[in-house]
Amino acid sequence: MAGTGPVCTERTPRVVAARKLLRRAGRERAGRFLAEGAQAVGSALDALSLGLTGPAGGAPAPRVFELFATEAAGARHSDLVAAARAAGIPVSAVTERAAAALSETVTPQGLVAVCGRIDVPVADALTGAPRLVVVLVRPSDPGNAGTVIRLADAAGADAVVLAGDAVDPYNGKCVRSSAGSLFHLPMAVDRDVASVLAACRHAGLRLLAATADGERDLFDPDSADLLAGRVGWVFGSETHGLPAEVAAAADARVRVPIYGRAESLNLAAAAAVCVYTTAGARQVARISTEPVR
Amino acid sequence: MAGTGPVCTERTPRVVAARKLLRRAGRERAGRFLAEGAQAVGSALDALSLGLTGPAGGAPAPRVFELFATEAAGARHSDLVAAARAAGIPVSAVTERAAAALSETVTPQGLVAVCGRIDVPVADALTGAPRLVVVLVRPSDPGNAGTVIRLADAAGADAVVLAGDAVDPYNGKCVRSSAGSLFHLPMAVDRDVASVLAACRHAGLRLLAATADGERDLFDPDSADLLAGRVGWVFGSETHGLPAEVAAAADARVRVPIYGRAESLNLAAAAAVCVYTTAGARQVARISTEPVR
Repeated sequence: MAGTGPVCTERTPRVVAARKLLRRAGRERAGRFLAEGAQAVGSALDALSLGLTGPAGGAPAPRVFELFATEAAGARHSDLVAAARAAGIPVSAVTERAAAALSETVTPQGLVAVCGRIDVPVADALTGAPRLVVVLVRPSDPGNAGTVIRLADAAGADAVVLAGDAVDPYNGKCVRSSAGSLFHLPMAVDRDVASVLAACRHAGLRLLAATADGERDLFDPDSADLLAGRVGWVFGSETHGLPAEVAAAADARVRVPIYGRAESLNLAAAAAVCVYTTAGARQVARISTEPVR
Repeated sequence: MAGTGPVCTERTPRVVAARKLLRRAGRERAGRFLAEGAQAVGSALDALSLGLTGPAGGAPAPRVFELFATEAAGARHSDLVAAARAAGIPVSAVTERAAAALSETVTPQGLVAVCGRIDVPVADALTGAPRLVVVLVRPSDPGNAGTVIRLADAAGADAVVLAGDAVDPYNGKCVRSSAGSLFHLPMAVDRDVASVLAACRHAGLRLLAATADGERDLFDPDSADLLAGRVGWVFGSETHGLPAEVAAAADARVRVPIYGRAESLNLAAAAAVCVYTTAGARQVARISTEPVR
């Protein structure tokens, strides 16, 4: 099975130490966080060898310090256990109770990796010539933040930046809802919103603020030129939207048009529409300008 | 304040009766459900006069049987209380405790309407010549279902259909996450998926199944003709996707392309991208074919 030593219980010191990572203060003190489940653990192990794909072609690879696995999960995911061992990562067998103690979910996955934090300075996340970057300003809901990170990854964004007083991206709910994407692209966390915007501009990005009352309609043909360039999409929080001064500082304020009677879209839906419309429009442009084969 | 009679407590018979609507069995028995908060209550009251905007221009208006309001909520939303009274709807003052007993949320809104169910038969939801309809097959998460209803409304869809063994759309979480949109467009609920698809075809809709491995790329220029017509988007559940036989029965299977390393998009994000790409593309087509003013 998974471990080589005795099976750890919830009182074994390494489990007790890992449990402290369930709280933000514990994560910040240790500079580590927990990734639970096969998808997150698999992505973390992949990232060890592949690195985080960024505009410069690879931010530093994350570190995985330890893997905990119950007997059942270790048997079910023997490939992951083998990959961890091959990478020199200690694998500890844990009881079901210890796995539950390391989990925030109702149905613990039985597989938890202790990872080193993976955020990089904003300038590093934006090196190279990023074409699509997602900036979340003061995101307050971890599930939303993770969902947007997953979306940014899916749309082929080069980096994600959490700006201002943001939710902890290493919160279990954020890690879970990112579905592994946290390990797929460079992420920066910076409390200074103005300096994040300045760094994006310095990297050659045109900043588009997504606001419900933006002067530009995302689907207006006149917006096509805006979307065709190198774009930094700037989104606010679900509850408070984008601060007025941040929206004002962007190069344009873009609205997803409401064709029906809904007052608005939720953050994740609006972000999905904005980011994919940008990525998809480029794809169309690329295909239609390609020489005929 | 809100009520004309004595303030109801959680033991007052009308409150006890309304509390039964927190459970699916209670809702089905009574044919009623609860709409909590100013947004939902406001949308329900608006729908009384406006009706549900559908392809035929107005499905039957919903009924609102009763409004419960705490003193604080009644004062805060005196416009809604007045609108309810003007419509002849009994308004009852309730204690904070009674409001909490009628709520599933951590922070009760103090304002709860008892509404009659508003779903209509599939054929009624699809009368007229619907141009954009959203079909959810076996949705299992109420929050997701509500989010997709909100999205369909925002994108100007003509109707929403919940097909197969579906979550109850009158579940509090679904009502909440629809943010009032449940009252904005006709909704049908039908356990027979095949007959829902047949009804959509009969209404002249081309059925596009959203699947991760669809043969059509949503952003492929060749897909433009598919999106330009009258479309019924068919989505599966978050956990189980779309049943293979349903995907096979659609006119085309369409994928949101993954440009990065994410395995997939979540249901709400994929639906947002599919539905808005359809609605937005039409808008662009409409603008570019309009005579120059």
